[in-house]
Amino acid sequence: MNTPTPFEQTAIWAVFGMALLGIAYAFVLRAQILSQDKGTARMQEVWGFIRAGANAYLSRQFRTIALLIGILTVVLGASVLIIPPSHEAVIRFGSVDAATQWVAWGRALAFLMGSLFSYTVGYVGMNVAVEGNVRVAAAARLGYNPALQVAYRSGSVTGMLTVGLGLLGGTIIFLVFGISAPDALLGYGFGGSLIALFMRVGGGIYTKAADVGADLVGKVEAGIPEDDPRNAAVIADLVGDNVGDCAGMAADVFESFEVTTVSALILGLVLGDAMLGTIGDGQYDLRFVIFPLLLRGIGVLASAIGNLIVRTDETKRDALGAMDRGLYLSAAIAITGFAAITQVYMIDPVSGTVDWKPFLATVSGIFLAIGLGKLTEYYTSTKYGPVQEVSAASETGAATNILSGTALGMESSTYSAIVIAGAIFVSILIYGSAAADLIHVLYGVALTGIGMLTLTGNTISMDSFGPISDNANGIGEMSNLEKSARDVMDDLDAVGNTTKAVTKGIAIGSAVIAAVALFGSYISDVGKVQAALGYAQLTAINVASPAVFIGLLIGGAVPMLFSSLMIRAVARAAAEIVTEVRRQFKIPGIMEGTVIPDYARAVSISTSAAQRELLGIGIMAVAIPVLVGFGLGIEALGGFLAGVILSGQLLAVYQSNAGGAWDNAKKHIEEGHHGGKHSEPHKAAVVGDTVGDPLKDTAGPALNPMVKVMNLVSLIIAPIIVSTRPMDAPMTPSLIALLALSMCGLVWSIWRSKQPTHTA
Amino acid sequence: MNTPTPFEQTAIWAVFGMALLGIAYAFVLRAQILSQDKGTARMQEVWGFIRAGANAYLSRQFRTIALLIGILTVVLGASVLIIPPSHEAVIRFGSVDAATQWVAWGRALAFLMGSLFSYTVGYVGMNVAVEGNVRVAAAARLGYNPALQVAYRSGSVTGMLTVGLGLLGGTIIFLVFGISAPDALLGYGFGGSLIALFMRVGGGIYTKAADVGADLVGKVEAGIPEDDPRNAAVIADLVGDNVGDCAGMAADVFESFEVTTVSALILGLVLGDAMLGTIGDGQYDLRFVIFPLLLRGIGVLASAIGNLIVRTDETKRDALGAMDRGLYLSAAIAITGFAAITQVYMIDPVSGTVDWKPFLATVSGIFLAIGLGKLTEYYTSTKYGPVQEVSAASETGAATNILSGTALGMESSTYSAIVIAGAIFVSILIYGSAAADLIHVLYGVALTGIGMLTLTGNTISMDSFGPISDNANGIGEMSNLEKSARDVMDDLDAVGNTTKAVTKGIAIGSAVIAAVALFGSYISDVGKVQAALGYAQLTAINVASPAVFIGLLIGGAVPMLFSSLMIRAVARAAAEIVTEVRRQFKIPGIMEGTVIPDYARAVSISTSAAQRELLGIGIMAVAIPVLVGFGLGIEALGGFLAGVILSGQLLAVYQSNAGGAWDNAKKHIEEGHHGGKHSEPHKAAVVGDTVGDPLKDTAGPALNPMVKVMNLVSLIIAPIIVSTRPMDAPMTPSLIALLALSMCGLVWSIWRSKQPTHTA
Repeated sequence: MNTPTPFEQTAIWAVFGMALLGIAYAFVLRAQILSQDKGTARMQEVWGFIRAGANAYLSRQFRTIALLIGILTVVLGASVLIIPPSHEAVIRFGSVDAATQWVAWGRALAFLMGSLFSYTVGYVGMNVAVEGNVRVAAAARLGYNPALQVAYRSGSVTGMLTVGLGLLGGTIIFLVFGISAPDALLGYGFGGSLIALFMRVGGGIYTKAADVGADLVGKVEAGIPEDDPRNAAVIADLVGDNVGDCAGMAADVFESFEVTTVSALILGLVLGDAMLGTIGDGQYDLRFVIFPLLLRGIGVLASAIGNLIVRTDETKRDALGAMDRGLYLSAAIAITGFAAITQVYMIDPVSGTVDWKPFLATVSGIFLAIGLGKLTEYYTSTKYGPVQEVSAASETGAATNILSGTALGMESSTYSAIVIAGAIFVSILIYGSAAADLIHVLYGVALTGIGMLTLTGNTISMDSFGPISDNANGIGEMSNLEKSARDVMDDLDAVGNTTKAVTKGIAIGSAVIAAVALFGSYISDVGKVQAALGYAQLTAINVASPAVFIGLLIGGAVPMLFSSLMIRAVARAAAEIVTEVRRQFKIPGIMEGTVIPDYARAVSISTSAAQRELLGIGIMAVAIPVLVGFGLGIEALGGFLAGVILSGQLLAVYQSNAGGAWDNAKKHIEEGHHGGKHSEPHKAAVVGDTVGDPLKDTAGPALNPMVKVMNLVSLIIAPIIVSTRPMDAPMTPSLIALLALSMCGLVWSIWRSKQPTHTA
Repeated sequence: MNTPTPFEQTAIWAVFGMALLGIAYAFVLRAQILSQDKGTARMQEVWGFIRAGANAYLSRQFRTIALLIGILTVVLGASVLIIPPSHEAVIRFGSVDAATQWVAWGRALAFLMGSLFSYTVGYVGMNVAVEGNVRVAAAARLGYNPALQVAYRSGSVTGMLTVGLGLLGGTIIFLVFGISAPDALLGYGFGGSLIALFMRVGGGIYTKAADVGADLVGKVEAGIPEDDPRNAAVIADLVGDNVGDCAGMAADVFESFEVTTVSALILGLVLGDAMLGTIGDGQYDLRFVIFPLLLRGIGVLASAIGNLIVRTDETKRDALGAMDRGLYLSAAIAITGFAAITQVYMIDPVSGTVDWKPFLATVSGIFLAIGLGKLTEYYTSTKYGPVQEVSAASETGAATNILSGTALGMESSTYSAIVIAGAIFVSILIYGSAAADLIHVLYGVALTGIGMLTLTGNTISMDSFGPISDNANGIGEMSNLEKSARDVMDDLDAVGNTTKAVTKGIAIGSAVIAAVALFGSYISDVGKVQAALGYAQLTAINVASPAVFIGLLIGGAVPMLFSSLMIRAVARAAAEIVTEVRRQFKIPGIMEGTVIPDYARAVSISTSAAQRELLGIGIMAVAIPVLVGFGLGIEALGGFLAGVILSGQLLAVYQSNAGGAWDNAKKHIEEGHHGGKHSEPHKAAVVGDTVGDPLKDTAGPALNPMVKVMNLVSLIIAPIIVSTRPMDAPMTPSLIALLALSMCGLVWSIWRSKQPTHTA
């Protein structure tokens, strides 16, 4: 049965409908928000600055990357000349010629679709956040619940768009390509991940350059409050929250959602092939592919329903409780739906009994998400010991504050790795540990990833909430809003900080799970190509072989290099902002508040700083796997992937949690502990907070898409490596040219990242 | 030929003689130093405090670990009941009974010998440093060259003892056990590594608790100079330099020297077995085992000669140049000797031509050591851009100083990993990359490790030099020595900082190389046991298998956890020192200088703080490999090792170099840049320096022996895992009991490390 049964046909179209429903729901919510009041003229004036800055950033970003996307689209389409269409594609489209055409267009358009969807989610997410923030500020004047609802629903637009578009792309590819979907799926994943990487890198540098710069010169040097309109960088700082925490985060989570789907579909096809007849005979058990799509469809529905009930009353003012209720309702609906669809659909054709294993693996993912969320909360919330220890360490100065946060970040990273290892172990327990069960276990891991991101519609709503309230608060400060409204926004802002940290923990965890699943499909992918070419097949990535160990070492080093580049980029851009704000402070009238500072210049500095890193990062993400793969061979490339995933996970969690803890240790002191605001411990904690900024909002989160881009690049180039360098054949001139070109690109991008910035 | 030829017999005894010569030379040097003048009565009084504190620490350390060493000696001897003697041992000793007895005693005594040698090197190294420092201070009153010579020769005692004892142990084991040496060699390596771990952990915590504590309360709070006699922690700080930088470092480098020898001998036997007849037939080509011993012997001689010429004249005062000349002379002698011995001895029995490959691999190691040294120097010396960038970043405060150092550390870690990967790649180039050449390549890697540590006699002399001059300076400060003498010691101290950083870079690099070589022998070791038991053999550690990936994740997480524990231990102990010194400052007469502070209490606090972590760390180092190996199987344990090595390398270099750069950025500012001493940038740089202290002197260097202890534990337990859990058989009750016990031990040691210290 390589064509779906009528039931399956209906099911896929139902999933397709669900994806459209999610998107439609997002647009209905958006219209609702746009119809809200925008407040006073002063509020709208401030907001106008933010909106202009945010839009300028994203349109410039688009121009920077459009050419690269265009080139890669053509390259992927043309790649059919080197990697011919698969056996499955020939079966699917009837002839080699037809398959070649379909696959060429498929690879190109799927990549383009992935890129555009990712960009759209980021763009719309940011746009609705910007539209939302002024309306949250206005709604806060009416009361707590109106503000909560506007803020949460603004976030829901992004949440529903993410899950809707993510599911739509996967479903379209499956509808068109059927059993030959993997090629197009990889392109789709690559497009999404690459844009997410750009949005994370660009947004992360922008937001922290503006934030650190504004704080260093405003709060520390001049002694004026945060968000003071006399500070020329204040608008850039507010714009930064939108481009980093909204656009960057939305594209990132979209990418995780998409890649978990892609890996489940690819592994579902591998498993489906193995379950029916012999491998490669074109006979598939399609249940394993359709099941993840159904799970995703149910997830979209569950999130949509759960989001509807988020509200609180004016006396309780319990935003977190309201959101948690929505989340629990969604979780209950999702699990019930998963169980129902398993009962109906996942029937073993041989024994006739219901196969509960995929269900268990999926549900374990939901618990993994909750577990990682709790772990992140434990390490980054002011309510628990770790952050309180960091704030107590501030009593003996900045150095002990930094050391305490460093130790905390490292410890949390350890436990996060162990929780993820535990989740993989659950798949082994479900499916058995013998080598023959390998593909089952990997499929289980992929479903765990699906499970983790089931409630993406809720978590993104909760997450976006943070920067929206933060911006609303900034608008409030700059327009001198009444205290009752400010109190509402302060409270929402604090809740947003917690939900933001939790989402980050889930996003990083799901990245690792998706990467492990993708990585698991590496051997079977490579083996398939080798079999088609009549070569000996790769059966293991033997990390005890020196070449593979070299790959592992290089892979492990990449996240270190990448983090170092990100931190430097922020530091350099922040220094430029400091210089610019200092210059403007000297202009007569600025400090007196009679002259409006030139906000646009600070915005322009941040924008340039963010853009200039993108090309280099893009080149690195492609050049390094090319160098390792073509230089050291297909097995070493596998070692490289393992190294990137391992070190990426450890560093991402370390940086995110240490940064989150420093941020909240400062807040804990501001709440009145250890001498409160303006005490010596507070000054020490401000140092920690500043150190943490680029770690938690630039380097840490950007590692997540970076790991997956390298993963997908490796999977895409693997067939070319196998066909051009079979069995470690000697180098050809064209291969040497390719390696030299990649090396030059790499050296150039590292060199360039060290040059001083010249602002436009 | 499984017995040596007459030439080989002579050669081995010559190596044995060379080892004894190295040891004798060390004792001659020591006697020379002891005969030097000890200076004024006040100098001897201060020195008396230091000597008492240092000896108290090491004898307490010995009592703490003696029981553990005793238990492990018995366990290793008794292990012959579970792991019977190898086929080779039966050949060697004539019968199973004789072999059983020899192997039981061999495993136990080799472990004991490794432990005692390591401890001796640490003890004597510290003792001679303590004896040396007061004499350096006295010699500095006579001139520059006398002080340089006393300081350098004090270091040479440790250097020559390290290479002498390291070689002696390996040679004795080979003489006694011949082709059945691997068992005893693993025990020997394990003993040395375990003691090195304890010396590094204990010494690292001691020195930084005292240093950070003394600085925080003395320099920062009370505003008195460093090494001021009114500070109750000042003696503990000086003692710390000896127990950390001398005893800890000496044991650590001894361990690296020993483990590179062990891995070369083990791989030499594997290769020698493969080269003659069939594997396991008892026929060996012994060249590959005897060659590394000869290399080591030549290295000892080369270092001894090079060390003799280290001197400078009073006008030039070029300590670094003098030491470099000694190093270059030794390198020239060593390379010439290696070439000569290759020409004479490494003749291929089939073709009759000279086999230059082992020579090339060894020499590449010498260049690797130089390369890593240069790389470390580039990133941590005030002469180059990176450190200057950190000191420039101090202009905008402590936060930018920390960020800049963090980025620098991460970048240097990347390049260090790439240089090491390059060294492994050179072995592949020399020996070819086909799977059949795997064992050759690994042997090449082991020889690279041998090459790296060829000049250990020189590098340790240069390294010990640093803390000795530092202490001499402290004694000078406390005894109000004349300025001319202080200037001499200041200069030697600064040179010592550079040589110290370079040695650290080489020690870490050699650790990774040795670990890779040992790890490479893992599969062949495991396969041998499996073959003997008639089981299917492990052919690869497939990192794409989920269980192995879990091992990799856990292994990667361990260095994070370990670093976090170390940083916490230092912070906690430093806080106790702060409290104690504050208490003493309030005692009338102390601040006026009329009452001598109670130095012994601060010494006792540091000693207790250092001791209490040892047991927990020891348990962790054994329990984690046991849990992974018995819980997830033999292949997952291989993944675990790869993870530990990768993440250990990255974190060790990151922490060491970031710390070194912060330290020197502060020095750079003190030299008059960016406002000089007491300016705002200087205060920012002091924060960075304090943050760097536990990273560079506690957590970073301790990772090096930690990685190898886990490596050796894994190699030792591997045969037990294979024989008790063949082919993933289900768990037995005794296995479950073992896992539960390890888990309890692990949880207890983590729990305990979080409890507040109760000082004796």
